Amino acid sequence: MLLPVKKLRAIKQEIRIVGVDDGFFAPHTKGLADVIGVVYRGGYWLDGAMKTEVTIDGMDATDKIAEMIMASPHYAQLRILMLNGVTFAGFNVVDIHKLSKLTALPVIAVTREKPNFSDIHKALTHLPDGDTRWKIIENAGALVSLRTRKGREPIYIQVAGISGEDAKRVVRESSTRSNVPEPLRVAHIIASGLTKASAKI
Amino acid sequence: MLLPVKKLRAIKQEIRIVGVDDGFFAPHTKGLADVIGVVYRGGYWLDGAMKTEVTIDGMDATDKIAEMIMASPHYAQLRILMLNGVTFAGFNVVDIHKLSKLTALPVIAVTREKPNFSDIHKALTHLPDGDTRWKIIENAGALVSLRTRKGREPIYIQVAGISGEDAKRVVRESSTRSNVPEPLRVAHIIASGLTKASAKI
Repeated sequence: MLLPVKKLRAIKQEIRIVGVDDGFFAPHTKGLADVIGVVYRGGYWLDGAMKTEVTIDGMDATDKIAEMIMASPHYAQLRILMLNGVTFAGFNVVDIHKLSKLTALPVIAVTREKPNFSDIHKALTHLPDGDTRWKIIENAGALVSLRTRKGREPIYIQVAGISGEDAKRVVRESSTRSNVPEPLRVAHIIASGLTKASAKI
Repeated sequence: MLLPVKKLRAIKQEIRIVGVDDGFFAPHTKGLADVIGVVYRGGYWLDGAMKTEVTIDGMDATDKIAEMIMASPHYAQLRILMLNGVTFAGFNVVDIHKLSKLTALPVIAVTREKPNFSDIHKALTHLPDGDTRWKIIENAGALVSLRTRKGREPIYIQVAGISGEDAKRVVRESSTRSNVPEPLRVAHIIASGLTKASAKI
């Protein structure tokens, strides 16, 4: 499924980005895990927060994240959707192309560490719909590495609905405090900070 | 109960402040409401998040907020505790002097609107421990008004464990994005954004 790539004419410093990450959960259990979205204006100001729940090792992350974002009062202002990787709540894989189509937003999945695809492939064989999950991961496309800050390790991105070059620019411009974009750094802090004491099991 | 007032020798731009606010809840019901704390470095960078639950119209907010803050990995770095007002989850009043003593931190309660004390006094008569609650509110001390931004309405503070002048400086310096300190602006966004969809009743 190839989607038209939105061309960003100019990346304004205050471009609205939503960053999405999951909270703590007990791996290999049945249940739900919190998924948090935070809206930033560029890399500087937090503008909004939203929450949904996805099934641990389930198949609903793509739809649930799309619903959360489209139900938000910030949706009309959003220009970019960033994900902390493509797997949430265990192996609940996000189809970034479908997510981009559902939300009509460019999607950029960011990881600090290069995923070990052979380990992931092996783990998926133990889960229902293992082949479907693997296909979704493969379809996310090649990992592109980039350096957001001098002297720091590179990070990796996968994109949907945006060119690799535009995605790199947005990721670099929004990495104001660390080597990952501020909306994702903060989504991680909030998701983990608020779920630690009350992890759903 | 008069406490020694901590003198802030110099207010560093990156001073660690925790801002505390409550989420949505159904008023006049029995149950718990979420209370969120966000840690900022000065008015610019979000460094941490924490959560507790307090009883709607209960009497446990002071202790629960103190426990939340002291259990946080950020506790040792914190220099200022800011509250969005002194009532949480309805009329669960915070004793700012006790909170300052328990946490060994200066406490600044901030409100945008001048509270209507006669309305509050009247409402408290319908609650158990109405007199105790009213005494705690009275003991929070006089409201001091200050203007954090030119041409904007003044805001109001009550303080414990810090001089009014030092408190005004911290409040002004941390009001980087609006007329209230950034830790409280963001605590409000997160607390309300994350509880709207899943309000506890």
